[in-house]
Amino acid sequence: MGYIDEFIEFLSIPSISAIPEHKPDLAEASRWLKQRMIRAGIDDVQIIETKGHPVVFGRKSAQTQDNSKAPTVLIYGHYDTQPADPLDEWHSPPFEPQVKDGKIFARGASDDKGGIYPAVLAAEEAIKENSLPVNLKFLFEGEEEIGSPSLKEILDEHRELFACDIVLSVDGGMFSGEIPSITTGSRGLAAIQVEVTGPYADVHSGSGGGVIQNPVQALAEILTGLKDKEGRILVKGFYDDVAEVSPAEREQFEQVPLDEEAIRDRLGVPGLFGEPGYSLAERMWTRPSLDANGIWGGFQGEGIKTIIPAKAGCKITCRLVPHQDPEVICALLEDHIKHSVPPGVRVTVKVFPGNSKPYVIPESHPVLPVMADVLGELFGREPVKVRLGGTLPIAAAFLDILGTYLFFFAMSGPDTNVHAPNEFIRIDDLNRLRRGLRMFWSKYADSFAGS
Amino acid sequence: MGYIDEFIEFLSIPSISAIPEHKPDLAEASRWLKQRMIRAGIDDVQIIETKGHPVVFGRKSAQTQDNSKAPTVLIYGHYDTQPADPLDEWHSPPFEPQVKDGKIFARGASDDKGGIYPAVLAAEEAIKENSLPVNLKFLFEGEEEIGSPSLKEILDEHRELFACDIVLSVDGGMFSGEIPSITTGSRGLAAIQVEVTGPYADVHSGSGGGVIQNPVQALAEILTGLKDKEGRILVKGFYDDVAEVSPAEREQFEQVPLDEEAIRDRLGVPGLFGEPGYSLAERMWTRPSLDANGIWGGFQGEGIKTIIPAKAGCKITCRLVPHQDPEVICALLEDHIKHSVPPGVRVTVKVFPGNSKPYVIPESHPVLPVMADVLGELFGREPVKVRLGGTLPIAAAFLDILGTYLFFFAMSGPDTNVHAPNEFIRIDDLNRLRRGLRMFWSKYADSFAGS
Repeated sequence: MGYIDEFIEFLSIPSISAIPEHKPDLAEASRWLKQRMIRAGIDDVQIIETKGHPVVFGRKSAQTQDNSKAPTVLIYGHYDTQPADPLDEWHSPPFEPQVKDGKIFARGASDDKGGIYPAVLAAEEAIKENSLPVNLKFLFEGEEEIGSPSLKEILDEHRELFACDIVLSVDGGMFSGEIPSITTGSRGLAAIQVEVTGPYADVHSGSGGGVIQNPVQALAEILTGLKDKEGRILVKGFYDDVAEVSPAEREQFEQVPLDEEAIRDRLGVPGLFGEPGYSLAERMWTRPSLDANGIWGGFQGEGIKTIIPAKAGCKITCRLVPHQDPEVICALLEDHIKHSVPPGVRVTVKVFPGNSKPYVIPESHPVLPVMADVLGELFGREPVKVRLGGTLPIAAAFLDILGTYLFFFAMSGPDTNVHAPNEFIRIDDLNRLRRGLRMFWSKYADSFAGS
Repeated sequence: MGYIDEFIEFLSIPSISAIPEHKPDLAEASRWLKQRMIRAGIDDVQIIETKGHPVVFGRKSAQTQDNSKAPTVLIYGHYDTQPADPLDEWHSPPFEPQVKDGKIFARGASDDKGGIYPAVLAAEEAIKENSLPVNLKFLFEGEEEIGSPSLKEILDEHRELFACDIVLSVDGGMFSGEIPSITTGSRGLAAIQVEVTGPYADVHSGSGGGVIQNPVQALAEILTGLKDKEGRILVKGFYDDVAEVSPAEREQFEQVPLDEEAIRDRLGVPGLFGEPGYSLAERMWTRPSLDANGIWGGFQGEGIKTIIPAKAGCKITCRLVPHQDPEVICALLEDHIKHSVPPGVRVTVKVFPGNSKPYVIPESHPVLPVMADVLGELFGREPVKVRLGGTLPIAAAFLDILGTYLFFFAMSGPDTNVHAPNEFIRIDDLNRLRRGLRMFWSKYADSFAGS
């Protein structure tokens, strides 16, 4: 069976982690992967059960004279997929893969079966050539699309098994199809809910207007007390722990061809907006943000209802950057809000669990130049350095538990309809990842030996 | 049949104007009223059809030597009732009246069958004694509880029929059961809706945080730009047309025994709140107010959703005082908001129809001392002057169309569960209204002759 046919077989398993009915499909996908890894010559392949869907593990020692001197690379990826709806927007059924114009269309083609399958192929090639230059480990999980609820526990329980020098994530993507990128960090997350309570029940605005504080107005005052009109966050102490970005890194970010006009048009806003004194890249990647995610209170129906609402509330999340601590930030928010309660109302602040720390790879990390070298060769141009505006809880988990940094090593551009109908992967990118991994292992082993 | 039994018969008709199934009951109540008015000796009794429920009209000329010299008093009231739910909170069925401890319990007992029935009785007594001192007219409508949608049209079409010197509303109530009050005005109403639009769709806060304006934040800025933290309205020109209250009237309001602590406890707020420099009575009755009646935007469910909402909106109503014009105020609001749109969003302002003008009886109106005299005698103490914080569209309609002021003449205190389960009226108050109306007609006729 050719590698495309085999990949199609893998893609045909509807391993949707979010839908309980698909639990047997996740088990099947994990077994398929296990068998394929064994056939590739990977050792110690095992299915590790979790409270949810299983993790597939495997390892292969470097085929060198003294493999204890070779670095250990843990390949991270996931065999679960997003749900496929809306089904009627797919040109072909999501789990009946179609090959067309050098692309393979299927749910999971890019995210992330198209990441882990080439990784197994790359290992198989190296093993068969008896030239694997690094100690390899594999951690393929089945819960990434539902927030990796078991990952921390699994890492914690099997620290020795997963111990490594670096984690290479074959889940992710490039800045664009032509421009390779190295993701050096991501923002953290802190989340709270604010509730303002006025009268016991809604009050007729004829009798209450001018008599009592309006909880909606009070909430608006709280919100405008958190952020000024230009976008600066006003919470006392909020910026205290924000790491300044080095001039070198700042310069690197400025090289990323971000098209502000294109972003504006794609989002449909009259203009971009954010903290003065910082470029778009800096605001997205290196500066914290604060946003109300939702607000509510009083009458939301058609027409008029002349009431002063009994209460109002909103949800607020902050994106955090090194070295802000989510718990400290939540405490600062709570403190700031509690010290600015408008008269005539009561305010409660609820801190949500599930905060995430910001994540950043040190500029001096020795893998960065290796990565730049490999990507430069693969794409024929220098990679840009980017960060994620969003959160990478997985990267933070590996760093916290194993003490190792995670590097993205995934080739797809942002056009492959990930999480959307008609997801696809380019066959060229499958091969680029396979080739790229072998190149990286080799160059990393060399640099490691020389260090 | 005694007058209580007869009143119970009237109360037994479930004339709920808001519920279409009760339309025949409104017709029945209007016929009952017509027959009772005819029996009372009232002339020209007729049912005037409207697009909704009918108006019952009748008149009786003054039984004086030259009735063209007697003033004409139009008695206004309504025979429709509020719905009765929640039914399970009633101690006896709402349309099976019960007499207990000098009270009659039934939906409509106080509001407003207990207003119009004594008015008919008072007329009957005077007519039978051949001593009616004023020209009487009656306008009893069947749509008050649904906002009197036909009243303006009916007044406009029958200006001659309804022409009068004053309107006496037997719908309403006293400041308290012991303290009589004269209501000298009410606030008007202006209503708008504000909508803030940012991106086409909700944006992930990881990629949008620090990049685009948040519509919820922008709406909060708009709201705090309308009213300062102490409760002053900041809309340019908003207070320009506000009439200053005379020192005499101000002093009268200060005599009203408003218990701030009791109001605070009843509403459940930590404290009252409003425009600095004005007493509670002034803020409620003579100062305009501005309130958000509802707000919405983004995610309102459980937990966290890390988005920047595509849009946010709110409803705002203002309570207006003489001589503010609702249309001018809406234009000022629109103008103010459009000149303070935060960067990065679009804002639309929608003006709702159905605004109401504020209403106030001139301090020099000759009926005021007559009213004070009558109420003083009826209650054994001087009446206080109050206003309504809410809106009286009916009073404004009579003034606009007929050019006549409306005076409340209703005896119930605020404890009779109007619009609530277990509505009742005190039999003493029924009789007080009957006696009071005759006293008022007489004293008013005297003052009119002397003027």
